[in-house]
Amino acid sequence: MSNTPNSPESTAPNAAKPNLLGRVGAWLKGDSNGEAPVSNSSLRTWRRDLESCAKEQGGPVASRARALGLIGQYRAMDAATRLEALRAFATELKPDAQPLEKAYGEYAASLDSAQEWEMETRLREAMVSPRARVIRQVGSAEAGVRFLVDVRAEVLEKLKAMPELKVLDAELAEQLSVWFEVGFLELRRLSWDTPASILEKLMAYEAVHEIHSWADLKNRLDHDRRIYAYFHPRLPGEPLVFVEVALTNDIAGNVQALLDVSAPVFDTKRARAAMFYSISSTQVGLRGISFGNFLIKRVVEDLKRDFPKLAHFSTLSPVPGFAGWLKGATLPPELQQALAVVNSSPDWARDAESTHRLRGALTALVAHYLANVKERSGRPRDPVARFHLGNGARLERINWLADTSVKGLKQAYGLMVNYYYALDDIEVNVEAFDRDGTVAANSRVRRLAELGTRVLEGKPVPALADG
Amino acid sequence: MSNTPNSPESTAPNAAKPNLLGRVGAWLKGDSNGEAPVSNSSLRTWRRDLESCAKEQGGPVASRARALGLIGQYRAMDAATRLEALRAFATELKPDAQPLEKAYGEYAASLDSAQEWEMETRLREAMVSPRARVIRQVGSAEAGVRFLVDVRAEVLEKLKAMPELKVLDAELAEQLSVWFEVGFLELRRLSWDTPASILEKLMAYEAVHEIHSWADLKNRLDHDRRIYAYFHPRLPGEPLVFVEVALTNDIAGNVQALLDVSAPVFDTKRARAAMFYSISSTQVGLRGISFGNFLIKRVVEDLKRDFPKLAHFSTLSPVPGFAGWLKGATLPPELQQALAVVNSSPDWARDAESTHRLRGALTALVAHYLANVKERSGRPRDPVARFHLGNGARLERINWLADTSVKGLKQAYGLMVNYYYALDDIEVNVEAFDRDGTVAANSRVRRLAELGTRVLEGKPVPALADG
Amino acid sequence: MSNTPNSPESTAPNAAKPNLLGRVGAWLKGDSNGEAPVSNSSLRTWRRDLESCAKEQGGPVASRARALGLIGQYRAMDAATRLEALRAFATELKPDAQPLEKAYGEYAASLDSAQEWEMETRLREAMVSPRARVIRQVGSAEAGVRFLVDVRAEVLEKLKAMPELKVLDAELAEQLSVWFEVGFLELRRLSWDTPASILEKLMAYEAVHEIHSWADLKNRLDHDRRIYAYFHPRLPGEPLVFVEVALTNDIAGNVQALLDVSAPVFDTKRARAAMFYSISSTQVGLRGISFGNFLIKRVVEDLKRDFPKLAHFSTLSPVPGFAGWLKGATLPPELQQALAVVNSSPDWARDAESTHRLRGALTALVAHYLANVKERSGRPRDPVARFHLGNGARLERINWLADTSVKGLKQAYGLMVNYYYALDDIEVNVEAFDRDGTVAANSRVRRLAELGTRVLEGKPVPALADG
Amino acid sequence: MSNTPNSPESTAPNAAKPNLLGRVGAWLKGDSNGEAPVSNSSLRTWRRDLESCAKEQGGPVASRARALGLIGQYRAMDAATRLEALRAFATELKPDAQPLEKAYGEYAASLDSAQEWEMETRLREAMVSPRARVIRQVGSAEAGVRFLVDVRAEVLEKLKAMPELKVLDAELAEQLSVWFEVGFLELRRLSWDTPASILEKLMAYEAVHEIHSWADLKNRLDHDRRIYAYFHPRLPGEPLVFVEVALTNDIAGNVQALLDVSAPVFDTKRARAAMFYSISSTQVGLRGISFGNFLIKRVVEDLKRDFPKLAHFSTLSPVPGFAGWLKGATLPPELQQALAVVNSSPDWARDAESTHRLRGALTALVAHYLANVKERSGRPRDPVARFHLGNGARLERINWLADTSVKGLKQAYGLMVNYYYALDDIEVNVEAFDRDGTVAANSRVRRLAELGTRVLEGKPVPALADG
Repeated sequence: MSNTPNSPESTAPNAAKPNLLGRVGAWLKGDSNGEAPVSNSSLRTWRRDLESCAKEQGGPVASRARALGLIGQYRAMDAATRLEALRAFATELKPDAQPLEKAYGEYAASLDSAQEWEMETRLREAMVSPRARVIRQVGSAEAGVRFLVDVRAEVLEKLKAMPELKVLDAELAEQLSVWFEVGFLELRRLSWDTPASILEKLMAYEAVHEIHSWADLKNRLDHDRRIYAYFHPRLPGEPLVFVEVALTNDIAGNVQALLDVSAPVFDTKRARAAMFYSISSTQVGLRGISFGNFLIKRVVEDLKRDFPKLAHFSTLSPVPGFAGWLKGATLPPELQQALAVVNSSPDWARDAESTHRLRGALTALVAHYLANVKERSGRPRDPVARFHLGNGARLERINWLADTSVKGLKQAYGLMVNYYYALDDIEVNVEAFDRDGTVAANSRVRRLAELGTRVLEGKPVPALADG
Repeated sequence: MSNTPNSPESTAPNAAKPNLLGRVGAWLKGDSNGEAPVSNSSLRTWRRDLESCAKEQGGPVASRARALGLIGQYRAMDAATRLEALRAFATELKPDAQPLEKAYGEYAASLDSAQEWEMETRLREAMVSPRARVIRQVGSAEAGVRFLVDVRAEVLEKLKAMPELKVLDAELAEQLSVWFEVGFLELRRLSWDTPASILEKLMAYEAVHEIHSWADLKNRLDHDRRIYAYFHPRLPGEPLVFVEVALTNDIAGNVQALLDVSAPVFDTKRARAAMFYSISSTQVGLRGISFGNFLIKRVVEDLKRDFPKLAHFSTLSPVPGFAGWLKGATLPPELQQALAVVNSSPDWARDAESTHRLRGALTALVAHYLANVKERSGRPRDPVARFHLGNGARLERINWLADTSVKGLKQAYGLMVNYYYALDDIEVNVEAFDRDGTVAANSRVRRLAELGTRVLEGKPVPALADG
Repeated sequence: MSNTPNSPESTAPNAAKPNLLGRVGAWLKGDSNGEAPVSNSSLRTWRRDLESCAKEQGGPVASRARALGLIGQYRAMDAATRLEALRAFATELKPDAQPLEKAYGEYAASLDSAQEWEMETRLREAMVSPRARVIRQVGSAEAGVRFLVDVRAEVLEKLKAMPELKVLDAELAEQLSVWFEVGFLELRRLSWDTPASILEKLMAYEAVHEIHSWADLKNRLDHDRRIYAYFHPRLPGEPLVFVEVALTNDIAGNVQALLDVSAPVFDTKRARAAMFYSISSTQVGLRGISFGNFLIKRVVEDLKRDFPKLAHFSTLSPVPGFAGWLKGATLPPELQQALAVVNSSPDWARDAESTHRLRGALTALVAHYLANVKERSGRPRDPVARFHLGNGARLERINWLADTSVKGLKQAYGLMVNYYYALDDIEVNVEAFDRDGTVAANSRVRRLAELGTRVLEGKPVPALADG
Repeated sequence: MSNTPNSPESTAPNAAKPNLLGRVGAWLKGDSNGEAPVSNSSLRTWRRDLESCAKEQGGPVASRARALGLIGQYRAMDAATRLEALRAFATELKPDAQPLEKAYGEYAASLDSAQEWEMETRLREAMVSPRARVIRQVGSAEAGVRFLVDVRAEVLEKLKAMPELKVLDAELAEQLSVWFEVGFLELRRLSWDTPASILEKLMAYEAVHEIHSWADLKNRLDHDRRIYAYFHPRLPGEPLVFVEVALTNDIAGNVQALLDVSAPVFDTKRARAAMFYSISSTQVGLRGISFGNFLIKRVVEDLKRDFPKLAHFSTLSPVPGFAGWLKGATLPPELQQALAVVNSSPDWARDAESTHRLRGALTALVAHYLANVKERSGRPRDPVARFHLGNGARLERINWLADTSVKGLKQAYGLMVNYYYALDDIEVNVEAFDRDGTVAANSRVRRLAELGTRVLEGKPVPALADG
C-alpha cells in the first residue's frame, strides 16, 4: 500500500458517535477497562474456526458460512477477549516458515534463469498467509466488509499497546485497499432529496465545522452550496468521504460568513469561485487508503460542467496543528508574553487591540509552520497541509480571524488558509512534493513564511501585513 | 488463488464471437500470424510508461491517467508487438532482488522473536512488484478492469508459447480474484424484459446447448424456465456466468425434450424439480476464479422461495470428455468393432439395432469414466464432473440418447448425466472430494461404474441395464 | 364526483406552512386584505389568454404554451386581482347557451328513438365548457397540476364570499378527480431512508399528533412503527395522504404511550395488532377526492404480508367535534356545572377527583355523539367518524384520558376512540352506512351510547363504567 | 374531445399481432363469426353487475372489486355475447331523463341570474351517466385501463354495424383522453439496451416500413439512428406511439437507402438533418387522442440538445392515399393508358422508359393531391398529410422512386414526400391550417401542385421536372 498522504481535513472519530452505528458501534466501543477476564472458551472456538476457515474446508460456500460465524463470535466477545482474539488472528495464522524458506531459496537460485518466473510465482503463493485467506472469506460475506473496516479501526487503536498487530493491520489494509479501489467508488451529490439516514451521518461525521442542526444542514445543501460524497457498493448508505463546497464570487476568507444560515442565497449564475470549506473522512478503518484526491478531481469536473464560468477552485481550510506546534516552539519573550495574555482571555478575538498586536506575527508564523515545518518523512507536519499539498494544491492565502469559533481559536488562533487548486499545475506540484517535499506556495505566502522564520529566530522583521 | 475446480459446463470461446465485442474484441482477435515486424517505437513508449506508472509519479490522479494511456497503446499494437509488450510487462517489472533478499534475511532471522511481525510486514512490502502496481493503476481506470480481463485471456492463450508470462498471469489472476470476490457480484434473473443487448450476449456465449434464434431464447425465458446470471459493477451489462433452469415434475433425462420450442408451457404450480440444463462461463480472462458454486447456491435459494414445493435440484449435464477418452482407451475387440461401425454411420442413434447393441456397454463405461478416471491431481478428468462434484453434487443417473444433437453424439455418444444437489449432503461431499478426490454417487451409478471397469478389462459382465 | 365521505383525521391547513411551499405557497397566502386595487391591465391579459387557450388556437402545442403563460400571470397577481381573475374564469367561460339549448331540445325529442345515442353524444359535447378546456390545457403543462390543486384550494377558501365560484370548483374537482384516480397513486412505505425533503413534509403536514422534531419523526419510523403515503406522478415528492401505524400486542388506548420516544422498541415478531394512530390529508385542493379508504386497504394488505400473525386492525382516533358539540348541547345542570369547573382548570386531567367525577358521563356522551349525532345528510357529525364508519370500520372502544395533550383535552376532554376494521365486515358496514347512515358499533359502545342519550335527557342512569 | 387531426403515419392494426397480446389479444380477436348463440345467463350477470357498479354500492373499495369482476366476465364471453354486452353498456346505462329534464329546465331559467352557477353545476351532475361511473370504476382497477383501451378498439370496429355504440365510444374517448393527457406521458429513447419485450413490440407495431428481423431493428438503433416512444404509467411496457429518426447530412429522399442495413454508420458529429422516417401509433383504442404532435416537439428538443449543429428537421413520409385517389379520379386518356400499363407490370419501377414517361405527371399529381384534395371538413384527404400539416409542418419536396418496396409502389407509385418542420413557422402554420385548411408548402411544391391541377384538367403543361 502506498504511503500517499491521505488524511482529509478531518477524520471522524466514529467511536464517539454510537447512536448511528447501532450494534456494530456498541461492540466497537466496548468497555475496554480490561478488568473482565478473558473468555477462554470463546477463544478456543475462535481459534478452531479461524483455522478451518483458513483451510477452506468443505468448499467456498461452506467456508463462507464459517466466516459469518467468526463475525458473530467476535461481536459477542467482551473487550479483553477481543484483544486476545486479535492477537491470535495476527500471530497464529502466519505463513508456514518451512515452505516459505524453500520457495525463497529456489527463487533466489533461479534469478536470471528461465525458471525465475515460475519460482517467483511459487514464492508469491508461499507468502499468502492463512490470515489473508480468512480476511477474504470474511470479506465476501454480506456484512463482512463492514466488519473488517470496523476491526481495522480497532486494530489501529490497539497498535501501540500490542505491536504484533502490525502485521494484521498491514494485511487488512492491503486487502481493503484493493476492494476500495477508486474505480469501485460512486460519486454522489447529496441534496435535501437524499435519504435522511445518510444526511444524519453527515451531521455525525462532520468534524471540521460542526453541523448544529437539520436547519444548518439544509442551509449547506441550498442552491449555492453543494455536498459530494463517495460511496462503495459494499458499505451501502455510508458516505466514505465528503466535501462541502460553497459557490462564491471570490475566494472566501472567513468561514463563519460562509456558513451563515441567515445570509441570502448567492446567485450561482454569477459564481466565479468554488470554495471547498470542509472535507471529512468517515472511516477510521480505511485510514491510509486515499480517496480524497480523486474526490476533489471529480467534484471539480462536475462543478465545471454545471457552472462553466468557475475560474477558481480553492479550499478554506483549518490549520489543526498550529497552536500545538506553537506551544512547543521557542518564541521571543515579548511574543510569548502576548500569547500568554491571549491564551488566558477567551474573548481576545473580539478585542481590537489584542488582534492588532498579534496579527502580523501569527500570520507570518502560520505561513512558516505550513511551508517549513516538516515531519521526519520530509512532509509537512500539519495533516491538512499534507493532504492538500500532496494533492497538488498550493498555499494561496493566510486568513486572519477566519474561524472565530471556540475550536478555530483554540487550534490556530482563528487563522485559516486557502489551498488553491490551479488545474494546470497540479501534476507538477505533486511530483515536486513527492520527490523532495517541495511545498508549492505563491510569492506572498512565501514571503510571509520567511518573515515567520525571522520572527521565530527573534530577528527584527519589517512591518507585517496579513495575507 | 485457490485451486478449486471452477469450470462450468462451458466457457464461451469469446474470441470466436467478435460481433458483440466491438473494438475490444477486434484487437483481442488480432491477426497473430506473427509476420508483421515488432514496432520498436511503440515498445519504447510502452516500457517508459509502464515504469512511470509503476512509480506512481505525479500522484495517484496523474498515474491513473498514465494507466489509461497504457490501455490505448496496447490496443493500437499489432499482435507481434503485443506479445513483446506482455513479455516486458512480465519480466521487466519484477520485484527488486536486493531489497527482497535483505527483507527475507531479516524476516528469517526474526522468526519467533518480537520482531517477526514487523519483519513479515516488511517482507510483504518488498514482495509487491511494479507489475502489481501497474495492474492496480490500470484497474482503477474506467475501462481498466475490462482491459485486464481481456489481457489475461490473451496471456492464457500465449502461456504455452511463452512460459515467462506465467508470473504475469498469476499476478493478474490474484488481483482479479480480489476484485471479482463473490460479495461484489450481483445475481440477476434474466427475463424477456431484460435489455436486448444482454440477451444477445446469452445467445453468443451459450455453448452447451446453442441458442438458435430469438424465438429459441424467448422459449428459454418462458414461465416454466429461468435464466440467472452474475454481474459485476466494473463490467456492466456483461453476464459473467449464467445458468439455465427448467421447472419440471421430475428429473429430466433428455435435453431435446427440455428445449422443445413447441412443447406446452409447464404449469409451475406443480413443479417438483428444477433442472439446471446449462451453465456457461463467459470470460476466459477470469478462468480459475470461482463463481459457479455460489451461483447455484443462490439460484436454489431463489427458486425455493418462489416455488416452495420444489424437492429436487439436479443438472442435466453433458460429458464433454467421454468420447475423447474412449478413443484413447484400450477396449475389448468386439466393442471396438461396434464403435467403429457407429463412428462411421452418422444416423446410428436413430437405428434401433445399433442403439440396442451399445446401450449397456456405453452407459457402464461413462459411469466408469465419471467415477474413476482422474487427472494427475486426483480429481475427475471430465471438466463438468470436476465442477459439479467439486461443488458438492453427486452422480445420480446416466441418461442414454439424452442429447442426440450432432455435438451430443460426437462428444459422448448422446449420453448425459444428472448431477444431483442434495442440499443436506453438499458440505460433506465437498469435504470428501477435497480431501482425497472421493466422488459422490448413488448406488446405481456406483454399480454401473463397476460394470464399466469390468467391460474395460474385457471381463464378462452380467446383462447390462441403463441408468 | 361522488359524495363519499373522505376527510381523513386531519387535513393539513397547508397555507399555514409557508416554509415548505416556497414561491407557490407565497402567492397562495398572499395578503388578501383586499385593500390593494385590482390590476385591470393584468385582468385584460388574463381574459384574452383564457379565451385563446380555450379555443386551442395554433394547435395543442401552442395552446399548452399559452396555458403556461396563464400560470405565470396568476402567480404574479395580488390577492384582489386574483379574486377577479377567478371570477372571470368561472363566469365568462361558461358553455354557450344557444347551442346547448338546441342540443338539449334535439336530445329530449330523440328519447327512445334510434337517434337518442347520437343526440346524447352531441348534448355532451355542447356541455363541455371553455373552462374545462382551459383546465385541461393548464393541467397538461409541467407544473399545471400543482397549479390547479393550489387554485382549487383558493377557490374553496373564497366559496362562501363568492358563490359564483361554485361552478369553477365543480369543474376543477371533476377534472382533478379523474387525474387523481386511485389507479394512478403509488403507495410508498416511508422510512428513515426516505429523502429528507419528503420527511420534512410529514412534519409540516401532520396535524393529528404533531411531530415535534426530527428525533420524534425518527421514532415514528422505527422498527415497530410504519408510515405509508400515497404519491402521484404529477406531484412528485408530495405525500397526498399518509397514515402512521404502530405495531402492538393489543389494541392501544393511549396515544401518549404510543408516541413515547423513550419507550423500548416493540418486538414486531410478537405483533398482534396494527394501530392506525394518525391519518392526514395534505392537499386542501383535493378535498372530496377519496384516497383514504384505499390507503387503509392497501396498508392492511402490506402489513399482513409482512406480519402474518396480525389479527387486529384498528385506529386510535381523535374526536375533533366532541367538545364543540357539547358546548352547544343542553346538558343537565350538575353536568354543566362539573364541566364549567373543568373548563376553567387546565390541570383537571391530572386531578383524580375531577376525572373520577366526569369519566362516566363523558364516556357515555361521546359514544352517543359518535353513534347518534348526525349531519342533515344523515351521516355522523364528527368528520373522523364519518371517514372511518363510511369506510367500513365499527366503533370499538371509547378511551378515557387517551390523549392528554392540550389539543386532546380541548377538543374531546382527552377522549379517543378505536375504530376497528374487521376485514370480513367492511363491505356490509359500508353498504348499511351508505343506505341509511347505519353506524356499526359493538355492543359495549352501543350500550354506552344509550346511556349517553339518557344522560343528555337528564334521565337517571345506572353506574357508568368506561369502555 | 377535440377534433385535432391525430393519425400518425400508421396505426398498427394490432388485432393482427396476436402473439404479443397474449390472453387479452385472444379475446379481442375472438371468432366473431356470429354463429355462436348469445349467452343469456352471462348477460344477466353482466347487466346486474354493471348496475351495482354504477351505483357504487358498498363503497369505492367494493365497487372497484366489482369492476374487476366485469373485466373477467367480458373476457370470458364469446364474440356474439360481447356485442350484446356492449350494447347493454351503451344503451342501458344512460342518464336518467327526468332529473336531467328538471336540471336543464332550472338551468335554462336561471341564465343570467345569480342562480346560474348553481344550476349549471347541477345540470353537469345530472349529465353524468351510469356508464361514465362504470368506466371510472373499471379504469381504476389494476388492469382496467388496458381493458378499456381494448374495449374501445372493439367498439370502434363495431360502430358502423351498431351505431348506438357511438355514445359509449364518446364516453370512453372522453375518459381515456383525460387519463392519457400528455402530461402523464413519459418520453423514452429506445436503444439496444431497452428490454427485449418492448423492442419486440416495435417490430410488431411498425407498419410504415416493416422491421424484418432483430438485425434490422438493431440497425435502426445504431449510433446514427434513434427511436423515441411515449409510455404511460397505466400501460407499462407499451409504446403508445413511436418515431424513428435517422441523422443525415442532408434531407433524405429515398427510404431504402435510409434503411440499408449494410450502409456504413454515419458520423453523427457531422449531422445536419434529422429525418423522421416513420411514426406509428400502436393503440387503436386511443384513436383521436393526440400524442404525435407533442412527440415530435419533444424529440426535436432532445435531438437539438445532443446535436447542436442540426439545422433541418424533416420527415420522409409515405402518401398512403394517393393511388386510391388516383384510381377514382378522371384522368386524361393518355395518362390513364400509361398507368394501366404500369399497373399491370410489377417491375415497371426498374424500367427506365416507364419511369421516365410517368415521372413528371405523377410528381405533379401527388403535389396536387397533397395540397388541394380535401375531406368534407376542409382538411387534406391524405391522413399523413393531415397529421403533419395539422402539426405545423410544410410540404417541402416530392421524391420520385423514393420507396420502391411492393407497398410503396402500390400505395403511391413509389412517391414519398418530405414534410419540413421549420421551428419558427410551426405555430403560424397550425393556426392557418386550423382557421381555413391552408396548406403550407414551399414555392416549388406549390408550382408542382398547380401543374398537377392542369394535368388533371387535361390542360397542356410545361415540361415537368420533379421535386
